[in-house]
Amino acid sequence: MKINGQHHTSIKIKNGPLKSIRIIDQRLLPHKLVWEDLGFVFEVVEAIKDMHLRGAPLIGAVGAFGCYFATLEAGEKEFELKFNELCSQIEKARPTAVNLMWAVNTVRDFVLNLYQNNTQLKDIQRLAFQKAFEIYGNDIDQCRQIGKHGLKIIEEIAHKKNGEVVNILTHCNAGWLATCDYGTATSAIYQAHDKGIKVHVWVDETRPRNQGAKLTAWELSEHGIAHTLIADNTGGHLMQHGKVDVCLVGSDRTTRKGDVANKIGTYLKALAAFDNNIPFYVALPSTTFDFNLRDGLSEIPIEIRSENEVKYMDGKTKDGFANVLITPAQTPAANYGFDVTPARLITGLITERGICKASEDSILNLFPEYK
Amino acid sequence: MKINGQHHTSIKIKNGPLKSIRIIDQRLLPHKLVWEDLGFVFEVVEAIKDMHLRGAPLIGAVGAFGCYFATLEAGEKEFELKFNELCSQIEKARPTAVNLMWAVNTVRDFVLNLYQNNTQLKDIQRLAFQKAFEIYGNDIDQCRQIGKHGLKIIEEIAHKKNGEVVNILTHCNAGWLATCDYGTATSAIYQAHDKGIKVHVWVDETRPRNQGAKLTAWELSEHGIAHTLIADNTGGHLMQHGKVDVCLVGSDRTTRKGDVANKIGTYLKALAAFDNNIPFYVALPSTTFDFNLRDGLSEIPIEIRSENEVKYMDGKTKDGFANVLITPAQTPAANYGFDVTPARLITGLITERGICKASEDSILNLFPEYK
Repeated sequence: MKINGQHHTSIKIKNGPLKSIRIIDQRLLPHKLVWEDLGFVFEVVEAIKDMHLRGAPLIGAVGAFGCYFATLEAGEKEFELKFNELCSQIEKARPTAVNLMWAVNTVRDFVLNLYQNNTQLKDIQRLAFQKAFEIYGNDIDQCRQIGKHGLKIIEEIAHKKNGEVVNILTHCNAGWLATCDYGTATSAIYQAHDKGIKVHVWVDETRPRNQGAKLTAWELSEHGIAHTLIADNTGGHLMQHGKVDVCLVGSDRTTRKGDVANKIGTYLKALAAFDNNIPFYVALPSTTFDFNLRDGLSEIPIEIRSENEVKYMDGKTKDGFANVLITPAQTPAANYGFDVTPARLITGLITERGICKASEDSILNLFPEYK
Repeated sequence: MKINGQHHTSIKIKNGPLKSIRIIDQRLLPHKLVWEDLGFVFEVVEAIKDMHLRGAPLIGAVGAFGCYFATLEAGEKEFELKFNELCSQIEKARPTAVNLMWAVNTVRDFVLNLYQNNTQLKDIQRLAFQKAFEIYGNDIDQCRQIGKHGLKIIEEIAHKKNGEVVNILTHCNAGWLATCDYGTATSAIYQAHDKGIKVHVWVDETRPRNQGAKLTAWELSEHGIAHTLIADNTGGHLMQHGKVDVCLVGSDRTTRKGDVANKIGTYLKALAAFDNNIPFYVALPSTTFDFNLRDGLSEIPIEIRSENEVKYMDGKTKDGFANVLITPAQTPAANYGFDVTPARLITGLITERGICKASEDSILNLFPEYK
């Protein structure tokens, strides 16, 4: 999508004797736009672990390029052993998002198959890059498709409201910064805006890492979409007073029964939407499904992160940047990264193949290959 | 309650030719403990408006002392006119908390009655101070009583859990800093702890003003009560996983049907508690009831505050304090101070007279004088 009027994608390919990639170091947004080069497995692992980048689909695509870097680093001698070891490092960089596992497994299986068929290492490397590039390209296509389907929901609401502004609430960043382009939850919003439909987005700031305040607000602002930042506490009140027409969020992992793991706090918004009879949609590429899981609450592992993300906050001062302690120094904090929204609270899942209910039957109807 | 092992109340009386009061400037907590002298109406108005102090009962008591200051400032000439004008200024300093209105009206009516009965100004002033002091003392008594009733709930849970730790979730600061002592929601927690019952408090940080992270965490820490700070997004996840035994919050205004206006985000926690079958109690002195109102959602005015409270955050740096911008500079923000939790989501109201259901019948059973 657009930055300052110019189109960008979240990963750029740097050509050279060995290809590498550029990503936005999202930790510096919204105050600084810095592109970072990644060309080694350890750089990919660090960038994922330390959240230079985040968002399940983007992590997946970058992880795929990481597996390509692994083919460059594994060496000819013990290729299989070393390649597997490097891929494992990438796979383990974040525990909750299933896309990373999926992307790493896809490239790993592809590479090992080539290797076992005695493909030349140079060819393996070239083909591994192509495979990663394919995952990247597919993600953009999928996000575009997700937006196309989600657009219908926004169009219907706009129609019902006789062209009045459609108010959409979103949590965290399921925007183009979380994918390779378009975003998942935001894709329909961008497409609606580009089509001339009046939209306004309530942006949950999304504590403790403030992805809404830092990333979603920045994205929407750069693309020229009307939005208002709110504390995470606010959505319920807005819904009680008719100020939200639809909730649109992303997902980090979705079970075959339609339970959705997403950024911590999503469940609370889903409860409020349900209580106020407001549609609550989850937008996700099919790679976010974990068809092995049924019950999200008991089966999806929830990442626990550093307490410092809760206790400290960084931002811009008059003459630079500062990291401030916002609580008594001795106070302990807990930092759960995600929660699970049970399928019963979800109006529908917007996938690249269309919209389905958050139920096993309806999901498998769209994805019969997992029956 | 205790600060560094010593007992304090939230208002201290300074004796002198004219009495004045000292309060904690809560804006500087938890990093600095600064007591501030208030001796004039304009100081009281400023302190309430700019939130040097907050918490409905504390605002009420300080407002009452403000009316005493008004008797000193009104002058003999046009006493009634000027006194009324000064009281109005105090009353309007914050719109949502009903205690302020109640306390100001109580002292005003008392003073005007004395005046109309030709009481000497000196006597009016002396008696106005006594009246304010009575409101202050009653608040402490009420909070102690609220805690005594709330304690039974905690004791029962501790009993059911065979003495295991009782996990309590609270939102915002309904602690002793919000009242004259003990607090409302925290009173039972302090009394349980002082009685040797093992308690642990999940403290919602309470964006955007962070009263949980700044005040509740500080209070509990100074009194030696086990607690863990969490982002406001986290409570639902904790409740889904059995990590919360009971929710205990305060109230800024409660209707005769039991709808509760409290800090923004309370409604979301009540929804989660209801969804997970966890008791959700509201602790309040009876002055928080607004018996004129029935439907909280349509009748309770909700304060809208500056967007800068959402966009900026202050805290401690390595060598001082800083105020940081946490969002793109151009991003607009909305800042609703409170939301309304419908009575149907509330297990019970803990008042100084005992615990009742959040229903008109049950409330009026405890407070028959409002039938």
